[in-house]
Parts: sequence; structure tokens; C-alpha cells
Amino acid sequence: MTNIAEAQLIALDWGTTSARAYLMGNGGSVVAERSLPLGIMQVAATAQAESLTLARAFEVTLGELCGDWLEAFPTIPVIACGMVGSQQGWVEAAYRPVPADLADPCAQLATVEIAPSRLLHIIPGVLDNKELPDVMRGEETQILGAMELGGQPGQDPEDQVFLLPGTHSKWVKVSGRTITEFSTSMTGETYALLSSQSILSKLIEPSSTVQWSAFERGVQVAQSPQGAADLMLTAFSARTLVLTGRLEETEVSDYLSGLMIGAEIRSVLGLPTTATAPALTICGNKELSARYTRALGIFGIEQVRELQGTAPRGIWALACAQGLVPSVFA
Amino acid sequence: MTNIAEAQLIALDWGTTSARAYLMGNGGSVVAERSLPLGIMQVAATAQAESLTLARAFEVTLGELCGDWLEAFPTIPVIACGMVGSQQGWVEAAYRPVPADLADPCAQLATVEIAPSRLLHIIPGVLDNKELPDVMRGEETQILGAMELGGQPGQDPEDQVFLLPGTHSKWVKVSGRTITEFSTSMTGETYALLSSQSILSKLIEPSSTVQWSAFERGVQVAQSPQGAADLMLTAFSARTLVLTGRLEETEVSDYLSGLMIGAEIRSVLGLPTTATAPALTICGNKELSARYTRALGIFGIEQVRELQGTAPRGIWALACAQGLVPSVFA
Repeated sequence: MTNIAEAQLIALDWGTTSARAYLMGNGGSVVAERSLPLGIMQVAATAQAESLTLARAFEVTLGELCGDWLEAFPTIPVIACGMVGSQQGWVEAAYRPVPADLADPCAQLATVEIAPSRLLHIIPGVLDNKELPDVMRGEETQILGAMELGGQPGQDPEDQVFLLPGTHSKWVKVSGRTITEFSTSMTGETYALLSSQSILSKLIEPSSTVQWSAFERGVQVAQSPQGAADLMLTAFSARTLVLTGRLEETEVSDYLSGLMIGAEIRSVLGLPTTATAPALTICGNKELSARYTRALGIFGIEQVRELQGTAPRGIWALACAQGLVPSVFA
Repeated sequence: MTNIAEAQLIALDWGTTSARAYLMGNGGSVVAERSLPLGIMQVAATAQAESLTLARAFEVTLGELCGDWLEAFPTIPVIACGMVGSQQGWVEAAYRPVPADLADPCAQLATVEIAPSRLLHIIPGVLDNKELPDVMRGEETQILGAMELGGQPGQDPEDQVFLLPGTHSKWVKVSGRTITEFSTSMTGETYALLSSQSILSKLIEPSSTVQWSAFERGVQVAQSPQGAADLMLTAFSARTLVLTGRLEETEVSDYLSGLMIGAEIRSVLGLPTTATAPALTICGNKELSARYTRALGIFGIEQVRELQGTAPRGIWALACAQGLVPSVFA
């Protein structure tokens, strides 16, 4: 492990519901890390509860998150990615339009003063201003981090597809180091709502393990001719299959998960730009990545690489490109 | 108006969140009617709150709803349709499978004794036990009521399509008086969740009137090549169009409504069985029916008839078919 004395950067992955802080050393190694449920939503709640300005609430939260590091290393740069740079965040970092070079040395970072002569730099999100526009904040940095780990064998570096599953999953086309286009699917958020609050939730019995056969069954329905209909038309089967004795209550949750992830994959593969993707990199938590990998396999996409925790590496790479930390590549 | 002395039937349309009672007279005319928010969900809550058996809570609720009619007309039959006949209802009326003759004189009604020698008859729902099964309770009776009003000009009586929009909209193929198949779309419930609790809700400003242009824009997106993707992929545009200054916050709600109803219609028209439907009857509330009619027009389906409040007429027709009330057709 790198000696803490070598700390060269404080990197923050500051999202909607959580904040992760990384103390980084030589070559982008992670010296220490923390995660707290202090996303921008909680910061806004704190501001309201304690009658603080939003900016002051962000200052306080930053202190909770890594005040000790800021004090111990008073001169190293501090950089964040994620929703902290949104309109509802600390300070807005205007979206960069596609095509967006992920390690652009000239990319305009937003800044906010966190101590006298000390700035927090915020990495801007990316906008694909197509007919139905798409935006991301944070995922661009995860992708840059993934690319730092090298390409996937068999993946053309000029034609890569990244999947970042989650509340709003992102499917991103990257050519070299440039995001060329992307799409968002509200799968995670819609799944959470349907499985906890809709009529489908009434028949869900929790299961201690993932019911993979039920999950795969859902994916197969999404892949079948019936899956051509919108999810709103297929989802009711998560209830009626139970009513007709053809699905167990403990299977409903994973069946629905498969149905929804399958519908997402089917839709994305139908987009002209991803239709030919032979290989794919998933950046996301293990449990969710495993679901997508399994579902992609059913759709015939076998060459899938899963990566976790790529955000700090991406922040480091951008800090190098921007000359904020010394880079061996610079 | 029919004299109340001529009352011949008490008809109940007893659903999940509301209960409607109709006192009916000669020829199926409605002598008096009531609607209370005493659906089976509220009955279950009452049972729990007051430590009653579910059956007792239903008895009490029936008294609240129409105890005076039951007393004033102690010999006329009492019939209900809807979720009161579900597993979570008063007594289960087993689903009838398709093909289901809506006015079958031999259809098995469930019964429960509501007073000495007095029964409540409950009309069974219908099950389409296809690969992804579908069920309905109450809608079959609304359709029968609609058919009592006569066919729609231009609609082949052997090939009719009924749409019953709502929390779970039903698209129903009817040949003569027989339901041959149907599909359910969870549009209304999913819309309510997305527009009140998802990230899309954050940018919604209420509007005092329907923003028809935003609604139509949503339908057009659903109809466009981009609408081939699942709603989970197109719905995020209700946020990003605002972020990019291309949609007003007061338009988000109706844009999303158009997007979702459009996705539903696109999906249903893609089903082989409804692809050729030239004409259609909508049974539902006025506001929602107007949305579907407008969206259907954009999809080129101009011959649409809207009907409201057909349930009592359907109950009357079934009561006639079953010999429970004298029928001029019997």
C-alpha cells in the first residue's frame, strides 16, 4: 500500500444519494477511501432542516466526508465528479456536448472555493443533444477510469460500448477516448417503483437468494416476440403468472427484474448504433452487473467485462490531463 | 324518470378503490345511484382497524352503501361485478376462461348470503390463459353494457375492439357477445408512479389545463422510430428536454402522458390481433377517454366511440340473461 505521506489528490464521486471520497497517491493508487450516504439529496435536506444556504450545507458535508484529509494535506488538489456539479448541486459544471474527449486537457472544470486559495474542481457532465437528449454526470469519469485499465480483448478501441447500470442505466458509445453518443434507460428507478408500490408488489415474497431461473425466464419473455410490446404490457404477467399458478411468489421479484433488464437490452440492441456491438464493458456494482451479464448472454452477447470502482481512476486520469497532478504520461 | 316503486335490481360496481351502487328499474333504467370511496382496499383496512372479519367488514360496508335500498326493497335481487369477487374480495368468483360469452345464461355466479334467504350474486371475471396470462374483473360487465347500447357504425359485430383505460387498461377483442382475447397495459399505474415519485416528477409544474400540444408531442415520439424502444428509454426525455430548454415544466406531465399512452397504443397495434381494428369503443372516464381518442387519431384510428357508465347496464343485461330479473328479450 502506498504510504499515506504520498497523498497527491482528494477525489470525490459525489452523486444523488451517496458520496465517496478517495485519497489518492502516486500513479493513481487509492491510499484510503470512504463512502457516506451524503448525496446531494441529503445535503439539500440538511440545508432545509438546519436553515443553511445550500452552499454552506455542502461545505459542512465536505468537512464530514474528508475534513481530516483536507487538513492533513492542505495543498493537494480536490476534484469531484457527479451530481454535485448539477443545477441541484454545489455549483453547476455546464455539460460538455458530444463528441466529448474524456481526457481533454482543455475541458472547463467548474470551481468553488472551499478554503482560502483552495478550490474544489468539478468535472462537467456530458450532453448528447439529439432529438431526445441525454445527459450524464459521473458516468463519463467512470468510463475514463475503465479505459485506464486498458481495452477489452476483441473490442475495437475505436468502437467500444460501455454499460453503466443503476437507477438510470447509461449505454455509451466511445471511440478512442471520445464519447460519441449515449442513451439512458430508467430501468432501475422504474423497477424500484413497480416492485415496491405497484399492484405487482402485492404478490412479491422476498427470497434470500437470487432466483436465477425466474430472472432468465423474464429475460426470455423480453427477448420473445411478446417482448416487442412495451414493458407496461408485459409487466402485468408478473401478477397473472402467480394468479394462474405458473410463478412462485418468491420468484416475482427476479422475474420482473429479468423482464425489465431484458426489455432494456432488447431496446438498446435495436438502436442502430449499438446493434453491432460485439463486446461490452460494464461499470457498476457486482450484483447488478452479474444480472446484466447473464441477460446479455441470453441475447447472444458473451464477451462482457465487468469492472467496479473505476471512478477514482477516472478522476486521477483527468487530473493528470489537466495538469493538476503530475502524470507519467504528461 | 322511472318511479322508485318500480325498482327491480340493486347493481353494484365494486372495485379496488371505489364502490358504486345503482337502483335499477324497468328495462334497466337507473332510478338512483351512489358512489363511495369504499373499494375492497378500504374494506380490508376497516376490517383491520376495527378487528372485524373481512366478511363482516363487507357486510357493514354494503349497509353503508345501500342498506336503505335493501330494506325498502327486500325481495329484489342484488348483483355485483368487480374486484369484490377477487381473492382479496368478499367471496371469490372463479374466472371464466376465454372464449367467454358475456351474457351466458349458464355462467356460474358466486353468491354470499347478505340476509336470511337473500343472496349477493357476484359476476366472475375473465381469464385469458395465454403464455402471458391476462385477467379482468368488472371490465367484462362494462363491455356487455356497451354492447347493449348497440354496435358502432362501421364496426363488424363479429370483430370488435374495446378499450377500457385506467390504472390497468384493457384492450379486448369481442366477437358477437364473446370475449375472445385481451391484453392489459399498466399505463395508468406506471404513469402515476413516474409522475409523482421518479426523477421526472422533480421538473413537473402543475398546469390548470391539459397541454394538448405537449401531449401530442409525446404521442408523436412514441409513434416515431425512437418509440420502438421501450418507454424506460424514451421517458428520460421528459427530463432532458426541460434541461435543454425544449420543453416547459408545465408541459412535462402531459408530454409524459402522451409518451406513455402512445407507447401503449403502438404496442397494442403491433399485436397481430388488433393490428387491423378499424373502429374502437372506449369505456372509461371522460378525461382519460379524450386522451386516448386524441392519441388514437394520431395513429390514424379515427373511428372511436366513447361511452361512460356502462357497468349498470351490463349488470342488468346479465341479470336478465340469468333470469334474475324479467327480460323483454328472455
